[in-house]
Amino acid sequence: MFVHNVFFWLKEKDNAEAREQLLAGIKSLEAIESIESVYIGTPAATRRPVIDATYDFAEILVFADEAAHDVYQVHPLHKKFVDENAHLWEKVLIYDVEA
Amino acid sequence: MFVHNVFFWLKEKDNAEAREQLLAGIKSLEAIESIESVYIGTPAATRRPVIDATYDFAEILVFADEAAHDVYQVHPLHKKFVDENAHLWEKVLIYDVEA
Repeated sequence: MFVHNVFFWLKEKDNAEAREQLLAGIKSLEAIESIESVYIGTPAATRRPVIDATYDFAEILVFADEAAHDVYQVHPLHKKFVDENAHLWEKVLIYDVEA
Repeated sequence: MFVHNVFFWLKEKDNAEAREQLLAGIKSLEAIESIESVYIGTPAATRRPVIDATYDFAEILVFADEAAHDVYQVHPLHKKFVDENAHLWEKVLIYDVEA
């Protein structure tokens, strides 16, 4: 399996409109057919020194393999998502895992 | 769902014995009953500026909720894993996601 973990930090954390737009954008990605499982959310309530809970949204996508992930990267819905929302985030951090 | 993403950086990246021991330790956690899905692996081949591929092992555990995650945290297998392997890693970084 190939797990694509993406964490987003908003430029304006307290801008409710920006939050809603980014979340809706992330959710639009669920429709991409090559995704096997998808988890979209926010930091859980857990707090320990080793936990990074500073991000605003997480998107964890599970694919059968890297080829299925590559289909996602070039999918029109993904391109639309980046085009329409990239200005909202200050930072994006990705961990791709071959599992 | 509650997704517990853990990334490990080994103290000795080129120590094959340490790698094998840590991987075996991470895999021993799969037996904990409150886990719904588990993905264990290493950095995928993808490389872009926003991708962090410097970690050595990733463990992505999916639980029904935070309570199921809490059962895992205090489980004897988890405690044994930390006791026996914590000396092997230089850094551990966790992202808990309420999804």
